[in-house]
Amino acid sequence: MTSDQYIDSHADDFVRELQKACRQPSIAAQNAGMREMADLLASVMRQAGIEVRVLPTAGHPVVVGHVKGKSPRTLLFYNHYDVQPPDPLDEWVAPPFSAGIRDGKIFARGASDNKGNALSRVFAVKSLLESEGELPVTVKFLIEGEEEIGSPNLRPFCLENRDMLRADGGIWESGYRHQDGRLGVYAGVKGDVYLELEAHGANTDLHSAAATTIPNPAWRLCWALASLKNQKEEILVKGFYDDAVAPGEKDVALLERPDPAEQETHLKRLGLKQHLLGLRGMDVVIRTLYSPTCTIAGFLTGYVGEGQKTVLPSKAMAKVDFRLVPDQDPDDIERKIRRHLIDHGFGDISVKSFTHSVPCYTPLDDAIVQTVLKSAETVYKARPSVSPWQAGSGPMSVFVKDLGIPMAAAGVGYWDNRNHGPNENVRIEDYVLGIKMAVQVMRDFAQA
Amino acid sequence: MTSDQYIDSHADDFVRELQKACRQPSIAAQNAGMREMADLLASVMRQAGIEVRVLPTAGHPVVVGHVKGKSPRTLLFYNHYDVQPPDPLDEWVAPPFSAGIRDGKIFARGASDNKGNALSRVFAVKSLLESEGELPVTVKFLIEGEEEIGSPNLRPFCLENRDMLRADGGIWESGYRHQDGRLGVYAGVKGDVYLELEAHGANTDLHSAAATTIPNPAWRLCWALASLKNQKEEILVKGFYDDAVAPGEKDVALLERPDPAEQETHLKRLGLKQHLLGLRGMDVVIRTLYSPTCTIAGFLTGYVGEGQKTVLPSKAMAKVDFRLVPDQDPDDIERKIRRHLIDHGFGDISVKSFTHSVPCYTPLDDAIVQTVLKSAETVYKARPSVSPWQAGSGPMSVFVKDLGIPMAAAGVGYWDNRNHGPNENVRIEDYVLGIKMAVQVMRDFAQA
Repeated sequence: MTSDQYIDSHADDFVRELQKACRQPSIAAQNAGMREMADLLASVMRQAGIEVRVLPTAGHPVVVGHVKGKSPRTLLFYNHYDVQPPDPLDEWVAPPFSAGIRDGKIFARGASDNKGNALSRVFAVKSLLESEGELPVTVKFLIEGEEEIGSPNLRPFCLENRDMLRADGGIWESGYRHQDGRLGVYAGVKGDVYLELEAHGANTDLHSAAATTIPNPAWRLCWALASLKNQKEEILVKGFYDDAVAPGEKDVALLERPDPAEQETHLKRLGLKQHLLGLRGMDVVIRTLYSPTCTIAGFLTGYVGEGQKTVLPSKAMAKVDFRLVPDQDPDDIERKIRRHLIDHGFGDISVKSFTHSVPCYTPLDDAIVQTVLKSAETVYKARPSVSPWQAGSGPMSVFVKDLGIPMAAAGVGYWDNRNHGPNENVRIEDYVLGIKMAVQVMRDFAQA
Repeated sequence: MTSDQYIDSHADDFVRELQKACRQPSIAAQNAGMREMADLLASVMRQAGIEVRVLPTAGHPVVVGHVKGKSPRTLLFYNHYDVQPPDPLDEWVAPPFSAGIRDGKIFARGASDNKGNALSRVFAVKSLLESEGELPVTVKFLIEGEEEIGSPNLRPFCLENRDMLRADGGIWESGYRHQDGRLGVYAGVKGDVYLELEAHGANTDLHSAAATTIPNPAWRLCWALASLKNQKEEILVKGFYDDAVAPGEKDVALLERPDPAEQETHLKRLGLKQHLLGLRGMDVVIRTLYSPTCTIAGFLTGYVGEGQKTVLPSKAMAKVDFRLVPDQDPDDIERKIRRHLIDHGFGDISVKSFTHSVPCYTPLDDAIVQTVLKSAETVYKARPSVSPWQAGSGPMSVFVKDLGIPMAAAGVGYWDNRNHGPNENVRIEDYVLGIKMAVQVMRDFAQA
C-alpha cells in the first residue's frame, strides 16, 4: 500500500480524530482546557508512532515529538494547540466546540488554526510509518500552547533546548489554498505588538448631565486613538515607518498578479464593495505584504446594551493591534507609541503590553522554500504562489533568527477559513491533501 | 397631631414602603417589571387616599392621581416609576434591587431617581389627609413609566388629557440638597438628544492581519466621533451653538458663588484632581448650566474580554448623548449632526435616534418658583439656592410649553445620590424631610 492509499483509506479516522481535538477547548487567553488538550495531543501523537514529551514552561506546556528517519537531514514541524477565544458566540452557525460537519467542512474554533494543521502532520508521519515502516527524514515536532497569546515562553524554551530542536529546515504552522486550488506558500511572517489602552475619569459612572465639568475617559481614548492614525490610513507615530522595508524588486517580481474575479468574489463574500482606500489588483497584494497596520481590535466604555442609558463612563478601554513588517522592531515600536501618547498629551492613558513578535523571513532561494514549492506542485498539481511573508504574524523569528532554522509555510487552510472569527472551518478535502503534502515534503526534503 | 408629627411617627412605614418599591425592578429600556411597578404604585397611592387610575399609552402605562382640596388652586406632581438599567452590576456594594439600608441610606436603583421622590409626595398627601382630613390645594399626580427612555408617549398622553391635567403650578420630579444642608431649587431642564451610531465593515469579524486592505468600522466610528468634538471640548457640528442662550445677567446674579471647600470635596469623592478644562469656582456653575454637551455614553467593538484577540471587527457602535440648553431644538440639532456626518465623509455610519427632549424653564419670579423657595426655607431652615434650570433634562416642556403649567423642582436628593450610576442611594433623613417639604408646598401654594 502506498502512503497515499493509506491516507485515503484512513481519511475518515483522521477526520474523527480532528473533530475530537476540536471538541476540546484550549483557549490560552482564558486558561481553558490547556492541559487537557496537551495530553490529548500527546496521546494521538504516541498512537501515530511518535516519541512524545510534554514539557513544562512558565506558562502552558510544550508538546515535543521525535521520529528518527533514513536520511541525515532533520525537518521540524512547528504548530500550536491553543486557539483564539470563540466570541462573538451568537454569530456561529453551531457552537464553536461542537465540530460538526457541514458541506464537507468541519466548523470549530481551531479546526484550521491550528489543530487541523498540527494533526495533518502527525497523520502524515503515521501514514508513512504504517505504509513504509520508516520516515525519509528525521522529524521533530514542536507544538506550543501560547501562540494566540503571543508565545511568551517559546523563546526561552527554544534557547534552553537548542540541541533537542536542531533541524535543517522547518515547516511553519499554516498555509492556504487559493480559489483556483493552488497552494499559497510563504516564507516569513509579519511582527506584532498588541496593546491595551485604558483611560480613567471619575471613580464611578455618573449621570451624563455631569459631562459639562467632569472629564470623560471615552473621549480621551477616542482622541488618543485618532491621534495614532488618520483617515488616509497613515500611522502618525513618529518614526513608525523608519525600519519598514520597501517592496524589493526581486520579491515583487515573484508575486503573482491577483485574479480580479477572485478579488471580486472575496469582497462580495465579505459584503464589501471595495478594499480599503479603494485599492485594486496588485496594490492589494503589495499593501497586504508591505504595509504595517494599526488596528482597533476592541473598544469598551459605558453602556452598550439595548436602548439608552445617559451615563458618563468612569473608564474606557481599547485593544490595539500593530502588525509590523521587516525590519521593524516590536520593542522599538512600543517605545515610540508610548512616547507618542505622552507627546500628544495622553500621558494619563495607561498602556498594557501583550504580544511582541518580531517580523522575519527566510530567503525564497533557500532549500526549505524550494522544497515546499516543489512538493506543493506535485500534491496540488499546480504551481503554488509564493510570497516573502504572510500578512499574519507568529514567533517564527525564534526559529529563523535564534535557532538558525530556515522555515517555509504550507498547510491545510483555504481562502475562507475564517481563522480568529466566527465559523472558523477547514475543508476535509484540504485536510486530507495537507496530510499528503506533509508526506511529500518529508520525501522531497530528504533529496534537497 | 400635626402633619409633621404624623410624618415622624410613621417614618419607618414610609421607609419600608420605599424599600418595597425599590425591590420591584422597573427598567423601561429592557421592559422589565413595568406593569408590576405601575400596579404596586397605584396600590400604595390608593392606600394613601388618592383617587388613582392606571392609564394605557402606546408604551408603558401612566399612573394618574387626584385629590380634591380646599382652595381653588391645583398643584401637579410630576414623577416617573421607571429606572435606568443598573449596570455595571459589579460596582454595586449590594445588588441594585435589594434596597438594604447602610449608614442611614437606602441603596437601590431608583431609590432617589425617582421612586423616593414619587413616594415622598404620595406620603405627604397621606400625612395631610390623616392628620387634617383635607388638602389645602387640589393635587394631581402624573407618574409616567418612560422617563429614562426619553418619554416617547408623554406628550401625546398629555395633549389628549389636557383637561384632566389642568393645574396652576407643578412640582418637578427631583431636587437636591447641598453639603451644607440647604435645598437646591431649579425651574427648568436642559434638553437631550440621544443617538446610537453604528459603523459596518466586513460581514464577519476577521483576523486582524486583514487590516491592511479591509476597512475597520472601529476606526470609522472613532474618527467620526473625533470630528464631533475637539480636545478643547468645542462641539464642531456646524450651527450647534446657534440657538444656545448666553448666561443672562439677571439669572447669573441670582446664582450663588460655590463654596471652594465643597467643590474640593466633590472632586475628591470622585477621585479627580480637577474639573474638566481646569475650571474652578463660578466657572464650574456657569458651565454646568449654560454649556450643552456631547458625551460618548457607550462604545463597543471587537474583543473586549481578558487578554488579547487579534481581530478586525465587523461592526462598531457608540451611544452619544447631547444635553441641550435653551433654546436649542432637539430636532434641529439632530438634523445638524446628521448633516455633519455626511459632510465629513461619514455618510456610511447609521444613526438611530432615541430621546428628543426640549430644554425649557419657568421664570424665577413665577408663583410656583417663589412658593418652592419659601417652603424650602421653612422646611430646611435655610435659604435655598436657585438656578434657572438644572444640568439634567426631562420632558418638562410638555407641561410648561404644551400645557402652560409653570414648574419648579424640589425633592429628596442630595449631592451624592449617584443617580444613573452604581450605588444610587437616598438618605432616609432627606426622604422624610422631602415628605414634609411636599406638605409645606401644598400649604404655601394655597396662599400664593
